[in-house]
Order: sequence, then structure tokens, then C-alpha cells
Amino acid sequence: MIYDTIIIGAGPAGLTAAIYASRYFLSALVIGEKLGGTMSDAHRIENYPGFESISGMELANKMLEQAKSLSAQFVFSSVKRIQRTEKGIFKITTGLTKEEHVFQAHSIIIASGMKRRVLGIQGEKKLLGKGVSYCSTCDAAFFKDKTVAVIGGANAATMSAVHLSQYARKVYLIYRKDRLRGEPTWNKRAVDNDKVKVIFNTNITEIKGENVVKGVELDKEFNGKKELTLDGVFIEIGHLPIKEMAVQLGLELSKKGFIKVDANKKTNIPGVLAAGDITDRKDDFRQVVTAVSDGAIAAKSAFDLKTKKDKITQPDIDYR
Amino acid sequence: MIYDTIIIGAGPAGLTAAIYASRYFLSALVIGEKLGGTMSDAHRIENYPGFESISGMELANKMLEQAKSLSAQFVFSSVKRIQRTEKGIFKITTGLTKEEHVFQAHSIIIASGMKRRVLGIQGEKKLLGKGVSYCSTCDAAFFKDKTVAVIGGANAATMSAVHLSQYARKVYLIYRKDRLRGEPTWNKRAVDNDKVKVIFNTNITEIKGENVVKGVELDKEFNGKKELTLDGVFIEIGHLPIKEMAVQLGLELSKKGFIKVDANKKTNIPGVLAAGDITDRKDDFRQVVTAVSDGAIAAKSAFDLKTKKDKITQPDIDYR
Repeated sequence: MIYDTIIIGAGPAGLTAAIYASRYFLSALVIGEKLGGTMSDAHRIENYPGFESISGMELANKMLEQAKSLSAQFVFSSVKRIQRTEKGIFKITTGLTKEEHVFQAHSIIIASGMKRRVLGIQGEKKLLGKGVSYCSTCDAAFFKDKTVAVIGGANAATMSAVHLSQYARKVYLIYRKDRLRGEPTWNKRAVDNDKVKVIFNTNITEIKGENVVKGVELDKEFNGKKELTLDGVFIEIGHLPIKEMAVQLGLELSKKGFIKVDANKKTNIPGVLAAGDITDRKDDFRQVVTAVSDGAIAAKSAFDLKTKKDKITQPDIDYR
Repeated sequence: MIYDTIIIGAGPAGLTAAIYASRYFLSALVIGEKLGGTMSDAHRIENYPGFESISGMELANKMLEQAKSLSAQFVFSSVKRIQRTEKGIFKITTGLTKEEHVFQAHSIIIASGMKRRVLGIQGEKKLLGKGVSYCSTCDAAFFKDKTVAVIGGANAATMSAVHLSQYARKVYLIYRKDRLRGEPTWNKRAVDNDKVKVIFNTNITEIKGENVVKGVELDKEFNGKKELTLDGVFIEIGHLPIKEMAVQLGLELSKKGFIKVDANKKTNIPGVLAAGDITDRKDDFRQVVTAVSDGAIAAKSAFDLKTKKDKITQPDIDYR
């Protein structure tokens, strides 16, 4: 079969696109690697309207069930290849098992999101959600009166340090270079902040702890020691767009690798829409709320494409 | 006191702005006339990710509780006047009682939404609340085993027809065009419903009755007659932006009266942001998801304004 639309990515943008597409009676398939995307790493989401506090995974599951109840289909797999035939049909090859599967669609919505830039050091993976976090906005409130470190030196790191200082007792800002490179305002706020201590020219080489973060190992002495006792480590060294598919298709990207879209989430290639964190955003604000909004708009555009193609205003149903 | 930001409107955009503003530690006051705005007229919302099916009022209450738990403040009242002083402070006068109240803020977020469009025909005003209604969610239950008509052909109308069919004996859906233009899901539900009869290409020209609705006059024969006997008339012909405040402030508006904003929801007047249905949208898509996204972005811009301002006048005061 040829789906009306295939949605790549199962984060909030992709899941919402599936909900809306289904309500437009589009046959929709979601191909995702990770349910919830980066959202599911947030152990508490408190800024998604409607839920005072919910885990990212729980919210993702609610969206999944909602999309399924509306007849959207799901394949959890990575995408190996995307091709566009001369007739404008998209062929998407997945590699779930040793066998390849090919799915076809008239339009695609790329909602592949971002991947975290990680340090790649010992303890980082093991202690994720157990004191290691990549999102101070999400998790700062859980570190009231605790001692934490932020790793990084650009805006995300300085803002996180300042944000964390409102909760934590003490915030170390650990940066490998000798000068912060964020916006001056935020640099100053971090440096001037009584609770924030910047440690320059230093890398962390290991995050220690068994079931919970106990501290970090430094590659240079601080206060005469190469160890720092901590309750939390916030790694804020940025995100990278998952752009491989976009490159394969020849989509127009921003300098940083985000997909350029118009107000209707259309890309430069007909039939290809994009939504969520993967898109180039003038507001530079990547949140669950912005993702769900994008997903809905992209699904509407997929519906508009179909109705245009079929030359009718409502698909397949006679309302008279 | 001078609030960091005052949010005008308590629909999904305003409530989300309150949630985000509070999480940015901005002192925020919401002035709203109606909790949930037009959202609270929806008896079922099934396309807001996270809730398979929820009433608009229930969702609004969840958002309200969430914003309150984060320390946002609320005043339920209409706004009489907005002024901007020479120093760039906004003064907002409300008229809840005979006494006027004045609230002040450094920035405002206008999320005033839309109001119902009226037909402007004879009998409409006179019989309001006597069989004429603009809100099936509110009033459907009064029409048990009665015969009613819904006027309109978009989402609000199809949803109302379906909702009314749960109470009424018979529901006429009267639309001036030859094809329903709502979401396909709701179009289908209306058309498939045994109790709902759609009358296309027809306008109503008068609502008849003295103390209570007796029927309507049509501009075209239906079943050989230009009159239709009815117990109730639900007018669901769309919404218009509530633009009076915007006009008062001198905000730049679109031809249809929506507030022009940039990607960060900034208007042409410094310190004035706008979010939700009241804004001019290139995607022309007004949904709960687009409103919550807007509200979050506007709150971030209010935060950015504050940090910019504080850099000059009160460096780091909140961060020590």
C-alpha cells in the first residue's frame, strides 16, 4: 500500500502529526526509533499545559495511545534510506531486522528531532536520570539545596547555571576553555552569582556513583583535589539535529543543519514536510508545546496536499 | 506593585503564557473574562496530545491549576482600558465591580482570543437564551427530545450537531454552502448520524417566536416549505478576533483584525506581545496546540525583555 503520509520520528511532533493526520482520515504510518524522542529523557515535565507533573515517557505513551486509537500505525525502527521516485512517491527503507522493509507514501513528515551532544565519559550513560541530566529547565527543581555541576560554557550552560542557582545550594560551572562563550549578559550573571563557581580550563573525565551521582573526576586539580563531590551533573554542551535523512533527500538546511520550513512546515521539496526540533526556528525555542504545534500544522499540510492532488475538498467521503 | 508581565486572556494561550512566565520567575498576572476562552465551549477535545478525550472546561481547569501551582495570579474580569505610560509601564483598568482596579506591568501578553460571530437577523437578539444559543456545550441538555437547528458548516457546527444529537430528537444542520468544511472526522460524524439532517445551500433569514423560539424562515424551500418548526437554534458560524484592546494600543493588525506578530510574538509596540487566536497566522490554523505554543514563546519573549531591561537598570538583582 501507499500511505497518504509517513511520519519519521515518534517524539511529540511526530505523535501529534499522527493524531492530526488520522483525524483528517489520512492513512498514516509513524516510523520512530525512540518513543517520545528527547522528551522521554525528561523525568519530569511540568511545563506542558494540562499536566502539572508528568514523566516524558508517560506523556509519550499517552500520545501514542491516542494516535493508535485514531488508527495511526507505528513501526519502531531506524530509517536506512529515503528515496523519492520520479512519480513523487517516497520509499522509506527501514532496518528493524536483518530483512529490510520498504514503506511507501505520497508525502512524508520529517520529525526526527535532535540528538544530545554527549561527553562520552564513564558513568554518563549509567547515571542518566539518576543525577545526570541534559536539561536544567526540566530537572532543576529536583535539586533543591543540593550541590550540582553544569558542564559547558556557552549559553545553554550559563543559563542552566543561573537557573539551577535558584534551587541548588551550590553550582559549579565546569568549562574546558578559559573564557565563557555565551551571551555577555548570561556570562556575567553566572560569574556574578554568589552560588555559582566557575571552574575554567577543566574537563570532567568520569561521573562517579553506583545508583546515584556521587561526584565527578576532574582532569586538573580544583581546591587541591581531582575529585568533586556532587548530587547532580548537568551536561549542557548542546544538541545536534538528526539531519542525515534531510541531507539524503537534498533538503535545504540552515548553517547549523536544521531543516528550513515555511509557515505551513513545507520544505523546498514538494511532498516533504518537517516539524519539531529538526526544523530551523526563528524563535530558537524547542519545547514540547512548539513541537506539538508543528506536528499539527504539518499534518494539515499533508492533508492539503492530498486534497489538492485528489482535486476534492474532502477525501473519499460524500457528505451530501 | 508592577508585575513583570500581565497576560490578557485565560484561554490556552494565556494559561500557557502564565505557566511559562512563572517558570521563568516572572511575576505574572492573568486577567481573563472567561476561563478557557472559546476552548471551554468545546464539549469534547480529542486532538490535544495527551488526552484522548476531554471537555474544554476540564482541560482549562487543569491548565489553571497548573499555572496557580506555579504562583501565577488570576483576576477574572473584563479589561476597560490599557494605557502605556511614557516610561513604558502598562496600566490596565478592569471593571469587575463598580470600583475600577488598575494593574501595572512592564510587559503585556495579549491573548484575548476570539468572540462569536452573530447572524444579525431578526429574532436573534430577542430570543437569545429563549431557544437561541451560541454554545451547544452549555445548552444542549435543555433540548432533550426537542427539534433544533445548528447554523454553520465548519467544525463548531458539526461538533455541535453531533453533541446535540445526544439530547435532541432531531437536529437540522443548515449551511449556506454546498459542502461541509469542518475537520473530516466531525463532518463524517455529523453526516453519519441518524438524527442529523444537513440542509445545504440555505440561509436562515429570521428566527420566529415571541417568548420562545418557534422556528426559522429559510431563503429556500426545504420539504416544500420556507419555514421550519424548531424549539432551538444554535448559531455556530465562527469567530472574530477580540481586537478592541489592540486598536486602543495602536497595534498593527491584519485586514481581518488579527494582531501582527513576529516569530517571537512581538508586536510593533515594545513590551507588547501577543499569542493565540488573536494573532495573524500565516498557517491560518487556530487550535489548542498552536495556542499553547504561542503562549510559551510569548512568555519567553517577556522573560527576554526583562533580562534586557534589568541589564541596564537593575543588574543581576534577581540572581544574587
